Amino acid sequence: LSVSLDPYLLTIANNKKNCILSLCPGASSTGATPSEEMNGTGNLMDFLDEPFPDVGTYEDFHTIDWLREKSRDTDRHRKITTKSKESYWELIKSLLDAWSGWVVMLLIGMLTGTLAGVIDLAVDWMTDLKEGVCLSAFYYSHEQCCWTSNETTFDDRDKCPQWQKWAELMTGHSEGAGAYVLNYFLYVLWALLFSFLAVSLVRVFAPYACGSGIPEIKTILSGFIIRGYLGKWTLLIKTVTLVLAVSSGLSLGKEGPLVHVACCCGNLFCSLFSKYSKNEGKRREVLSAAAAAGVSVAFGAPIGGVLFSLEEVSYYFPLKTLWRSFFAALVAAFTLRAINPFGNSRLVLFYVEYHTPWYMAELVPFILLGVFGGLWGALFIRGNIAWCRRRKTTLLGKYPVLEVIVITGITAVLAFPNPYTRRSTSELISELFNDCGALESSQLCDYVNNPNMSRPVDDIPDRPAGPGVYSALWQLALALIFKIVITIFTFGMKIPSGLFIPSMAVGAIAGRIVGIAVEQMAYHHHDWIIFKNWCRPGADCVTPGLYAMVGAAACLGGVTRMTVSLVVIMFELTGGLEYIVPLMAAAVTSKWVADAFGKEGIYESHIQLNGYPYLDVRDEFTHRTLATDVMRPRRSEPPLAVLTQDSTTVEDVETLIKDTDYNGFPVVVSRESERLIGFVQRRELTVAIKTARQKQDGVVSSSVVYFTEDNPQVAEACDPQPLKLRRILNLSPFTVTDHTPMETVVDIFRKLGLRQCLVTRSGRLLGIITKKDVLRHMAQMMNQDPESIMFN
Amino acid sequence: LSVSLDPYLLTIANNKKNCILSLCPGASSTGATPSEEMNGTGNLMDFLDEPFPDVGTYEDFHTIDWLREKSRDTDRHRKITTKSKESYWELIKSLLDAWSGWVVMLLIGMLTGTLAGVIDLAVDWMTDLKEGVCLSAFYYSHEQCCWTSNETTFDDRDKCPQWQKWAELMTGHSEGAGAYVLNYFLYVLWALLFSFLAVSLVRVFAPYACGSGIPEIKTILSGFIIRGYLGKWTLLIKTVTLVLAVSSGLSLGKEGPLVHVACCCGNLFCSLFSKYSKNEGKRREVLSAAAAAGVSVAFGAPIGGVLFSLEEVSYYFPLKTLWRSFFAALVAAFTLRAINPFGNSRLVLFYVEYHTPWYMAELVPFILLGVFGGLWGALFIRGNIAWCRRRKTTLLGKYPVLEVIVITGITAVLAFPNPYTRRSTSELISELFNDCGALESSQLCDYVNNPNMSRPVDDIPDRPAGPGVYSALWQLALALIFKIVITIFTFGMKIPSGLFIPSMAVGAIAGRIVGIAVEQMAYHHHDWIIFKNWCRPGADCVTPGLYAMVGAAACLGGVTRMTVSLVVIMFELTGGLEYIVPLMAAAVTSKWVADAFGKEGIYESHIQLNGYPYLDVRDEFTHRTLATDVMRPRRSEPPLAVLTQDSTTVEDVETLIKDTDYNGFPVVVSRESERLIGFVQRRELTVAIKTARQKQDGVVSSSVVYFTEDNPQVAEACDPQPLKLRRILNLSPFTVTDHTPMETVVDIFRKLGLRQCLVTRSGRLLGIITKKDVLRHMAQMMNQDPESIMFN
Repeated sequence: LSVSLDPYLLTIANNKKNCILSLCPGASSTGATPSEEMNGTGNLMDFLDEPFPDVGTYEDFHTIDWLREKSRDTDRHRKITTKSKESYWELIKSLLDAWSGWVVMLLIGMLTGTLAGVIDLAVDWMTDLKEGVCLSAFYYSHEQCCWTSNETTFDDRDKCPQWQKWAELMTGHSEGAGAYVLNYFLYVLWALLFSFLAVSLVRVFAPYACGSGIPEIKTILSGFIIRGYLGKWTLLIKTVTLVLAVSSGLSLGKEGPLVHVACCCGNLFCSLFSKYSKNEGKRREVLSAAAAAGVSVAFGAPIGGVLFSLEEVSYYFPLKTLWRSFFAALVAAFTLRAINPFGNSRLVLFYVEYHTPWYMAELVPFILLGVFGGLWGALFIRGNIAWCRRRKTTLLGKYPVLEVIVITGITAVLAFPNPYTRRSTSELISELFNDCGALESSQLCDYVNNPNMSRPVDDIPDRPAGPGVYSALWQLALALIFKIVITIFTFGMKIPSGLFIPSMAVGAIAGRIVGIAVEQMAYHHHDWIIFKNWCRPGADCVTPGLYAMVGAAACLGGVTRMTVSLVVIMFELTGGLEYIVPLMAAAVTSKWVADAFGKEGIYESHIQLNGYPYLDVRDEFTHRTLATDVMRPRRSEPPLAVLTQDSTTVEDVETLIKDTDYNGFPVVVSRESERLIGFVQRRELTVAIKTARQKQDGVVSSSVVYFTEDNPQVAEACDPQPLKLRRILNLSPFTVTDHTPMETVVDIFRKLGLRQCLVTRSGRLLGIITKKDVLRHMAQMMNQDPESIMFN
Repeated sequence: LSVSLDPYLLTIANNKKNCILSLCPGASSTGATPSEEMNGTGNLMDFLDEPFPDVGTYEDFHTIDWLREKSRDTDRHRKITTKSKESYWELIKSLLDAWSGWVVMLLIGMLTGTLAGVIDLAVDWMTDLKEGVCLSAFYYSHEQCCWTSNETTFDDRDKCPQWQKWAELMTGHSEGAGAYVLNYFLYVLWALLFSFLAVSLVRVFAPYACGSGIPEIKTILSGFIIRGYLGKWTLLIKTVTLVLAVSSGLSLGKEGPLVHVACCCGNLFCSLFSKYSKNEGKRREVLSAAAAAGVSVAFGAPIGGVLFSLEEVSYYFPLKTLWRSFFAALVAAFTLRAINPFGNSRLVLFYVEYHTPWYMAELVPFILLGVFGGLWGALFIRGNIAWCRRRKTTLLGKYPVLEVIVITGITAVLAFPNPYTRRSTSELISELFNDCGALESSQLCDYVNNPNMSRPVDDIPDRPAGPGVYSALWQLALALIFKIVITIFTFGMKIPSGLFIPSMAVGAIAGRIVGIAVEQMAYHHHDWIIFKNWCRPGADCVTPGLYAMVGAAACLGGVTRMTVSLVVIMFELTGGLEYIVPLMAAAVTSKWVADAFGKEGIYESHIQLNGYPYLDVRDEFTHRTLATDVMRPRRSEPPLAVLTQDSTTVEDVETLIKDTDYNGFPVVVSRESERLIGFVQRRELTVAIKTARQKQDGVVSSSVVYFTEDNPQVAEACDPQPLKLRRILNLSPFTVTDHTPMETVVDIFRKLGLRQCLVTRSGRLLGIITKKDVLRHMAQMMNQDPESIMFN
């Protein structure tokens, strides 16, 4: 077969056959040799051997063509394989190329793990800096400071002498109203300083570093181009400002931004290998794996990370990527473990081990927590989207720095008096998840101990709650309301902000409250029928920490609508198959309840809010429309802008390019027959004509552009040189018939990752459907009453 | 829009307009009312309101059309949604329909878990029955029998008085040559009996119950129809014969067949809901989840099961299925746990807990085990496929019963003398995985204890091996050779046979041998540089059980080429993130080594051997061929069999159907223009013409078949009645141009699950590519030298 197989390699042939240059006005000779005549394929002369730098790339905010990217990669691979047989050097190069995927994963895993470790350490230190400083070494966090202290016991580990609160350091007094006010003031001041720094850095250096980044990464992975979103600058600024934002005590987490940071790492390492940097499709495979690594270090859950990437973030996830993601996630987890930021060889602050099993009857409170989680999810999404929309449309959006300062001020002022909101949110979650062991000094574990118990062991029976628990309950209830309200306003500000941790905190507080309530009920009423079977006096039958965990899962599920990955992440935190059923019950309930209020999770909502062209894999399109209802042009619109294969002049093409802003043009046999022969990209057409005008003799405005395979027939000797552009013609454009159900069209767009699709009837070109048309149509259908479409 | 949207609902319109019946010879009047004239869509009269029972189903050994199945399900869903607004009853019905997916999963999980539990219990009992019987209750296995025994200590738990070996029971002597020979004889006899029963049951009642079933399930899930493969009869017989086959002591496991059993359960419950029973696409979603449940109970690894289904078995795996699979897998696991077949509230016999970490230097033996696993995988696949091919082609295949008997005889005779092959393979694996704790009585744990050690605790330092270990090593080496050889001949016989367990056994034996070697080396040479850092005297630095586990993972990976699911299954067995790195290193090495000898795992090899039309998702198609190279008709062949939209007679169509065996025919505007308008299925065409001839007046052989939208123009009054078949015409056939790279075509076939695709050039129909053409082409390309294609 001698047909040119690669329609994307741009080469333009000129025809020097029929026309002697000097006879033709307007054509200047440059003395090109007419020696490439043997080439019988119709490409008379390829004067452009070097590919254009621009060809094969995409413009910013455009959608990539997955099929095309894949075919380009196969071409590249084929070339390398062929070359590898030529010499040892080429063989080594081809092996390096084959291995580069693993190398990239290794590098991503290592850098992500390191960054996560550094972020954890820095956050720890700076969070504590708001309250005091370590005298032995100022760069120690409170806990690290007191590790070295000899006097530390479990009871008074908060009172080691090396660690001094600001008031104590400045005035010498650690107690009293003055010291409290000074500490309060400095706490707020530090918080304001951190958040001001964060928002200023974002504003000045990397505006893309704000937010959680997951909606944008989802969009990018689905094939959209946002230049700079995953750049080095974003990576640096996001890492720094993430530390600042989390340390400032705002109600936000580092999990979402960590995914963004990991994807930036992925993008960074992609640029080292032309295999990935020059192919947007392959690049996205790496980014999917990087997202897995990000979640892996955020939760210390490598398998959960891979499933999160698969379920929530990724669009195109071949099995090869699954395996590599797993590798990257593991490398990241082990790098983080080597850094050991929490000093317990665990990957997260809130790793837990429970000692008691759960009982069937407990499913009722678990499901109630699921309902709560679903309601919280629905409320949060509605509230947050409404607020973000207001931010976009009103004056509010003009003062992002002020907004951050105000919210930080409010957060800090309200958070300080309550011990459960003063500390960092992940510490709070860690405490709420914890089972009250014998050595626990927390207020939450202030139970009335039975004096008969000789020595408390790990398996402690249920006890009546002491005054500490009751005051903790009040504080937790206030903290719950505070977190619910402030998180809605925090997420979406111009600083890095994840919502995993705040959501989990809301759920954990609610869960712990419910857990303590059930526990006390079981203790005081163990003769009730429901408690009779599983809660004898002196038995340890209710674990409030488990309730906190179930609540956290429910709230996280309600907001993100994760399912499998959520349960697996939680499973990896607890390490036991035992507790999967409660977690699943809560996750399912929460998803169903939240879905009843709106099908979209927070990420999809933000994607919609920002108008990204994202075609959700999960949306079922069930309407009875046909391709003909969606295609452009509509009945009232002017006919489709097409090129003909052998009767359009250069001038016509230039006018068409100038007058329209379509990304490409179908090429037909003739305007009468309308039989489709191919599709040509606007970008390539522009470049080709520009180059031809510069470099090729005799190409003038009246030159005819040919897309045919055969040599153009030049009627007269003095007709202008024809311009042969078959090489830039995509000879295999995707077509569907006008009768194709839109459901099938949507499926094709999703699965094949198309940018556009041409619509034909009996071989005649009728119109075109682009990804945006599909999205617009889907949105229309969603808003309309389904029945009105079904029967019209 | 008034166009008929569902091309599959078969209705045939007849035209009573232009011809008065009595004038036309050959047409008999039945007095039909000419009253449906208002219908202006071109369907003059739909006399067939009831759909045909056959329409929408597929013939045996045919491929389903995924897009069509999906669109049928959407139609069904739409109907239910519309109806649900009519009455409360319909609303309830629609809710039930929405919930039916979860109900099916619950039922599958429960039945699969129960069956797995019953199989485990029965296998335990029958395996022990070969050696002896429990006097207190004949249906107790050895272990259950001795549980109730008071005298049992850990040392002599094998010697409880209630359990008697056959020789003891018959002759009263439990020792001596006579007793040994009698036990030997009875062991072989029981084995022969079990395997004879198994093969006879399979032969007589359910021939599909043989083998592991996974290759066939993969093929079925990819869209192939094999009637009866997942039937009730197969379920019953496979369950029974699986117990018999495993109990007979043959070198086979129950894991693969359990997946088949689970899929049979899935199919069984599908038939309860028309949503699944009537839609082959939806049915396959359920089957994917059932496969996950099968692996979940086989290994006690619900997450691993889901990933196995995703990675290895399934073809079309939407996210919804992921979540449901997870649910089914969990239900199955918890049902099995409730049955508690192993009496330890674990789901598998070989759950392990290790106490020592691994060290970097150990990666070397781990990777060596990976190499061994890869070599074993390659050897096994080659050997087994060669043997199976021989079985297919020679006389051997004619005597399956004899073959099973002979192999069982050889296995039993060789297995009895060696204690490591005599017991069941999963018990062997369990012992090999085990860490030598203080209470272990196994020969493998016969280390020389340091008399200074006051009391052995769980964390025992390395010790020199005692004579028991050395004799165990010899026996293990013999067992290894025996297992390697016999497994090659066993897999593929006409009895249920899985290869997970034998593969794992091979790896575990090799791993344990290597582990003990390293351990002894470390003990005796702890001054060597490599041991110096991590293996001080008196430290517990090498865990031979971990080596066994790594070896098992490597061998399983070499045979099946699983990656993520393999590591996750092993992770769920050990429960610690700790050991993932060794497992991963071994799995990766083993896959690479095995891939070097042949890209296909055992399942793909068997699929190829049996010639199933399976389009592997993982095969990268990288050749530079075009659609035009693959499409039929070839240049030398007669032109494509097409129908025209308004000039073919009934007789022509009937001749075409008789003369060809194509599954469908493209319909074109006319033979001259060759412009494609649609595609009609052979099955539907046959049914439609047959019905029309029976029921519709005036349709005779010379009637013209119309596929047009407009009313046919009948030239003369006495022309025979035209037959209008637009309703069975698929107006959106899938087309590609002749220049489309085959790589893209393969992608489209895979992702959209097509049966066939039409090839056009500039709107003219050129040819057709079916799934089988694609598979044939891929096989051709695989065998040819890539360069000869690339440059011709």
